[in-house]
Amino acid sequence: MRVEIVAVGTELLLGQIPDTNSQWLGEQLAAHGIASQFHQHVGDNHERILLVFRTALARSDAVIVCGGLGPTQDDITRAALAEVMNVPLERHEEIVEQIRSMFSSRGRSMPENNLLQADVPRGATIIPQTRGTAPGLICAVGQKVVYAVPGVPYEMTDMFERAILPDLVARQAAAGTTSVITSRVLRTWGASESALAEAVAPRFDELVDDDRVTIAFLASGIEGIKVRLTARGDDASHATSLLVHEESLVRALIEERLGDIIFGVDDQTMEDVIAAQLLERDLTLAVAESVTGGLIASRLVGVVGASKWFRGGVVSYASEVKFDLLKVPVGPVVSAVAAEAMASGVRALLHADVGLSVTGVAGPEEQDGQPAGTVFVGLSFGETLQHAALRLPGDRPLVRAYSAISSLDVLRRALIASS
Amino acid sequence: MRVEIVAVGTELLLGQIPDTNSQWLGEQLAAHGIASQFHQHVGDNHERILLVFRTALARSDAVIVCGGLGPTQDDITRAALAEVMNVPLERHEEIVEQIRSMFSSRGRSMPENNLLQADVPRGATIIPQTRGTAPGLICAVGQKVVYAVPGVPYEMTDMFERAILPDLVARQAAAGTTSVITSRVLRTWGASESALAEAVAPRFDELVDDDRVTIAFLASGIEGIKVRLTARGDDASHATSLLVHEESLVRALIEERLGDIIFGVDDQTMEDVIAAQLLERDLTLAVAESVTGGLIASRLVGVVGASKWFRGGVVSYASEVKFDLLKVPVGPVVSAVAAEAMASGVRALLHADVGLSVTGVAGPEEQDGQPAGTVFVGLSFGETLQHAALRLPGDRPLVRAYSAISSLDVLRRALIASS
Repeated sequence: MRVEIVAVGTELLLGQIPDTNSQWLGEQLAAHGIASQFHQHVGDNHERILLVFRTALARSDAVIVCGGLGPTQDDITRAALAEVMNVPLERHEEIVEQIRSMFSSRGRSMPENNLLQADVPRGATIIPQTRGTAPGLICAVGQKVVYAVPGVPYEMTDMFERAILPDLVARQAAAGTTSVITSRVLRTWGASESALAEAVAPRFDELVDDDRVTIAFLASGIEGIKVRLTARGDDASHATSLLVHEESLVRALIEERLGDIIFGVDDQTMEDVIAAQLLERDLTLAVAESVTGGLIASRLVGVVGASKWFRGGVVSYASEVKFDLLKVPVGPVVSAVAAEAMASGVRALLHADVGLSVTGVAGPEEQDGQPAGTVFVGLSFGETLQHAALRLPGDRPLVRAYSAISSLDVLRRALIASS
Repeated sequence: MRVEIVAVGTELLLGQIPDTNSQWLGEQLAAHGIASQFHQHVGDNHERILLVFRTALARSDAVIVCGGLGPTQDDITRAALAEVMNVPLERHEEIVEQIRSMFSSRGRSMPENNLLQADVPRGATIIPQTRGTAPGLICAVGQKVVYAVPGVPYEMTDMFERAILPDLVARQAAAGTTSVITSRVLRTWGASESALAEAVAPRFDELVDDDRVTIAFLASGIEGIKVRLTARGDDASHATSLLVHEESLVRALIEERLGDIIFGVDDQTMEDVIAAQLLERDLTLAVAESVTGGLIASRLVGVVGASKWFRGGVVSYASEVKFDLLKVPVGPVVSAVAAEAMASGVRALLHADVGLSVTGVAGPEEQDGQPAGTVFVGLSFGETLQHAALRLPGDRPLVRAYSAISSLDVLRRALIASS
């Protein structure tokens, strides 16, 4: 099963936006054992889109097209698809109704050109929208298939998971490719990629002649480094047993060399892990943020059900807010003393069981004689008041993002240590 | 002059790294009035690289190939190029010497496989390295040309500027086509893509037969919709005058039909615009957030120099924090009354000139009988206390992100109205 990804949009050719869709799709396909051998970008031009579709269909079994399905004059993927399929476009009344009702439910009138999105090549299967207006399409072209999805990432990812991936997996099974691939991601925070690679090196050496199991490192910036384990078995239970065995070996190597740096697996975020701990122990949390300016609180609120354990926070950006509201002693605000006072201050102010705080210098300028990247995390929990001093790399947005996840990791480790 | 960009590397297909090279090259080519009409990604496989090269040479005048020039087994761009040119590879002794001396100058011994980098297709012109070991290549294929450069970004950009761009410009001049492209992005919030397209439709119709100016819409999710204007002129001043004229026409059409929805241009964010307004008028801001949980504050703190106008915020997630700290009257917390009280409460608590607040239901569950997506924004500014009631689409992360930018837009409009 050879899959090609085509991203449509002049803005990609002009370099105005990065093509994150092809990267995401390539990663997802690989994780499910499906090869993407070619990617193409093409602009909003009918003849060139046709040429790209025909090139892709000549060399691949399935083509995923992202973009060009919107309601405007430069959205021409539908028409090009109809031409490749050699069928007319037909307006679907049920899609018309969905688009109309979406607009009316928001109390807005619908511009007529939205109805272009209800035009579908005859014979195509529709992937219904759940998040926007343009439906996706599954178009058979001879024995091959073209999937068309909107270029908006969250609409694209939804349709891929809901419709395209199951269809591809079914086609692969029908083609008699029977091995099953399963994978697991170990998520780490606090070690470099090379340190991780060194820790796992003994297992790498053992796997040189084994093509059933692979280990890959994926540096994921502010979310740490992911270690992806993939196992290929004759059936699901075989693949799972290979994977479980591999995970225990790799975990042991990492924990022996680097300690407790694996914070979660697969899609678990740092805040998911913390939420589960707090909920289980019936603890509430409050945060005081300076350098992160609300990033920590907004990550925590992102967890469904956060109201059960999250009280809230104070973004004490101006120094006087730290002094007045959080009772921080007047003095340098990028300091261990200030971090600890912020943590106990916000815990008391918001009547929480745990107070977490962070203060630091995001840059580009230094502050109080401290260089950009200097960060102090404070934690007030039970009878203990503690802090961690960090030096973080990167520019202003990176220092802030690293500060947020580093602070959460301080809390995670304290919760584990006290349990 | 039609240029195609080919990025070689299995890691691109697997989504392990983003293809920043194609984006950068596309942007550079556009800035110099050279059209890049197609991009391709291909893995480290000889047959597939050949296929991609032949496809590119069939439809484009020049091809820029990034990657696959290094010293390891999977670096096979040189061999594929020789095959497309139908010539043998020849080892260049001067390149051998350069690579040897580079290693010895760093006091390192040279692994033998580095000499592969001295193999060059017969007849190719060499682009000398200044930053690494693998030289670039300029390869004539009939009347067309293939440029091959390393995939390492700083080696690629150096060779592009030093050798490829001058060569392309010379070829374009020889072909008698010289033009300069310039562009501007108008950033909007609060109208649908289709409403924007309808507003601009009269101008679209006038431009049907004009290939000097283009208008494109770019739905950018939580950052609104961008309208990109591009003008192609005989020289820089001609292109600029076309663009300035186009911007005034398009702005007038949008503002007439949709009001003040253009909040910024090019890279300006909503918070940049607000920051400039507050700074100019010497006003300070405080925010109270519930549904957004710190997203608004964290966007504001992202602006360099925010400490000049941002006091801080309260993330009043638990209802009692709203009642106790912000003096919100006890009652339903997803309401206009609560939003207004939060805005005046945080303004007073943090001694700011302006108080902005947001409360709502992010979902998935409803709250106080209000469905997910119900959001109230409060604003306390001067003598006025006001609110806006919104119904936002999407799942939990989207409702929160839309709430954040919608709240900032309420503030932006109030600042404009009062100035």
